[in-house]
Amino acid sequence: MNILDIIAKKRDKRELTKEEINFFINEYISGSVTDYQAAALIMAIYINGMNERETTDLTLAMAYSGDILDLSDLGDVIDKHSTGGVGDKITLILMPIIASLGIPVAKMSGRGLGFTGGTIDKLESIPGYNTNISVEQFKENVKKIGISLIGQTLNLAPADKKIYSLRDTISCTESIPLIASSIMSKKIASGANKIVIDVTCGSGAFMKNINDARKLADIMTKIGELSNRKVKCVITGMDEPVGYAVGNILEVKEAIDVLKNKYIPQDVEKIITLLGSNMLILANKAKNAKEGEDMILENLHNGKAYQKFIELVQNQGGDISYIEDTDKFEKAKFIIPIKANKQGKIMRLDALTIGKLAGFLGAGRIRKEDNIDKKVGFVFEKKVNDIVKQDEIIGYIHSDDEEKANYVLNRTKDFLEIV
Amino acid sequence: MNILDIIAKKRDKRELTKEEINFFINEYISGSVTDYQAAALIMAIYINGMNERETTDLTLAMAYSGDILDLSDLGDVIDKHSTGGVGDKITLILMPIIASLGIPVAKMSGRGLGFTGGTIDKLESIPGYNTNISVEQFKENVKKIGISLIGQTLNLAPADKKIYSLRDTISCTESIPLIASSIMSKKIASGANKIVIDVTCGSGAFMKNINDARKLADIMTKIGELSNRKVKCVITGMDEPVGYAVGNILEVKEAIDVLKNKYIPQDVEKIITLLGSNMLILANKAKNAKEGEDMILENLHNGKAYQKFIELVQNQGGDISYIEDTDKFEKAKFIIPIKANKQGKIMRLDALTIGKLAGFLGAGRIRKEDNIDKKVGFVFEKKVNDIVKQDEIIGYIHSDDEEKANYVLNRTKDFLEIV
Repeated sequence: MNILDIIAKKRDKRELTKEEINFFINEYISGSVTDYQAAALIMAIYINGMNERETTDLTLAMAYSGDILDLSDLGDVIDKHSTGGVGDKITLILMPIIASLGIPVAKMSGRGLGFTGGTIDKLESIPGYNTNISVEQFKENVKKIGISLIGQTLNLAPADKKIYSLRDTISCTESIPLIASSIMSKKIASGANKIVIDVTCGSGAFMKNINDARKLADIMTKIGELSNRKVKCVITGMDEPVGYAVGNILEVKEAIDVLKNKYIPQDVEKIITLLGSNMLILANKAKNAKEGEDMILENLHNGKAYQKFIELVQNQGGDISYIEDTDKFEKAKFIIPIKANKQGKIMRLDALTIGKLAGFLGAGRIRKEDNIDKKVGFVFEKKVNDIVKQDEIIGYIHSDDEEKANYVLNRTKDFLEIV
Repeated sequence: MNILDIIAKKRDKRELTKEEINFFINEYISGSVTDYQAAALIMAIYINGMNERETTDLTLAMAYSGDILDLSDLGDVIDKHSTGGVGDKITLILMPIIASLGIPVAKMSGRGLGFTGGTIDKLESIPGYNTNISVEQFKENVKKIGISLIGQTLNLAPADKKIYSLRDTISCTESIPLIASSIMSKKIASGANKIVIDVTCGSGAFMKNINDARKLADIMTKIGELSNRKVKCVITGMDEPVGYAVGNILEVKEAIDVLKNKYIPQDVEKIITLLGSNMLILANKAKNAKEGEDMILENLHNGKAYQKFIELVQNQGGDISYIEDTDKFEKAKFIIPIKANKQGKIMRLDALTIGKLAGFLGAGRIRKEDNIDKKVGFVFEKKVNDIVKQDEIIGYIHSDDEEKANYVLNRTKDFLEIV
């Protein structure tokens, strides 16, 4: 077997065998297959596609290219994943609810690149919270309090990491088999056998339209079947940010407010009940969606989820006084209002543009080594379909740099449309 | 302009602009575009193709990526190129004929990789012949005696070299736009404005079938038109070796024998008259094919071509006693006859297999640094369609290694078919 024949096969739109896919991944990790050979093969896969069987084999080859987290001693762990978006603080709200319902939550998240930080960056906004603990400690935490959320301390799916960063440099990110295998390889490596995946769809998501979102959901469900994992995909909108806050500390504060039942944005409620009920069904804790949704909202409303969140933070060394009084969190120097330029109905509050501008303010990173400014971002007061008066406040820009804040303010028309 | 957008465009089967193609070539040569980015783009070009305008722009960008040989002071130089094959000693025979007809011959050839050596390797089989002379000396030679054949002393089309070796490692050799632009870029860089190209077609050639050969001929003719060069392509067969000899010294001896009018293989006569008449028409020396063919054969038969060859060798420091008496050339230790296993008609004398076996005997190189054994190869006594008796000699294996010779002998059935 040699890489030239494998490249030629996919170049000619033929199906690769499991052995050929394993050969590619193993030799790429070992360095005998070069980056330029991988780039040629990835481009051929992008253009000529892969069927479900090939995509599953690629997923498994990448999953088993590094460490595999073994969670079998923790019972029926249900994982949750989102394909990403702007203002997505669902994990912070939903996972304490799930844990409070007696389902073990053992989640190892990547730091991620993007307009705003990942779940790990958000958790690290809480002073003292340690995302970097040993696997033993991690499992101990789950056994003790039913939940632990940490960073990637293991070498999970290194082949995916290598291919993912290669894809970025050769314009091969938006390929459904490549996205599906990337997500699923990380999930499989992180020990999940039952996974609910939130396939986000809209301007702020990877999948810009519903057809692509459905395709991605279908192929990931199929990978689940073919690899003996239970996978349930749900599709949620990502045309406007999730909830009101965008940016690390700002999102953590919103999550805490929701857990404290101060308020709940309608879209957040919809997403947590949809994902949560599916997790409860996979865990055999709920018979149907309605029952699951009721259980989720009950443990949110009765304060058990908030208590679980406090336990989680305390158990990982975080300072819970910040949770109890979110005013203690550090604030950006400049908090500048965004006002409606006329009266009418908000037609658009564009997630992609808001995400990019949050990144511009410093909320995200482009390279792994970039620093994140945890304080900056947006807090909106309105959502799409809200009616506003002229000069009414739509939300606030949080920035440490006045010039940047004004630049963002001047670009309001790029993300806000009132008709 | 950035390489990601350019890759994405070709990935999506869109047309690249001249500026985008120039950007790619310039940045690839400078190193800002990496090998893996080039590999992704080349694969996208392989799969999604390039139109004639794009192929011409790629050709010119590669041609102008290094030195350009300026032959304008030498008059109406007509170049000749072959897409390669087994036993192809046409340049050694045809160019002295052309020079003897008063058309300046100034040819800079690559050393080339392949089953047997290139023209330069063959010329270096003549003791003393210097292929490595300065451009000034090269031009002086042409002015003085009307002909000079040398190696690539200039840095011609370095972008082509870089892309050519990349293509080899990513299964992207057999792409017609890429082959066409590679050939034409080198020809344009080596100063030719009028070029006759022998597009070989058959088992021993790059183009295995007549449709591909026609496509390659058409696109090269079109590149000529669009880049203001006169290009005439002819298609010739390459299912059996050209002439009787395969291997460096063996081919030089056959070329000398032809120039001495000792004999002329039918296919060699056909190729030199076809290419030669087209060269004479491009040079405005012949009105039509018939006239051109007569002129070619006349100067072969009257000995003027042989005299010109002697002058060429002498002028470049070669020992003409080897030309006068070809028995002086070094011989392989083992010269083993290949015999007909039955009586009948030769249906196949497969160029590709013979080429590969010649390479196995040491006649060619795989890497630039490999040494060539100039003595080894094959000398056939028969051609396809010849009638042979049982045990009649088909040809001889020339080898310095008896084991290798016997291995080749035992593989006779792979290249010889008698029915």
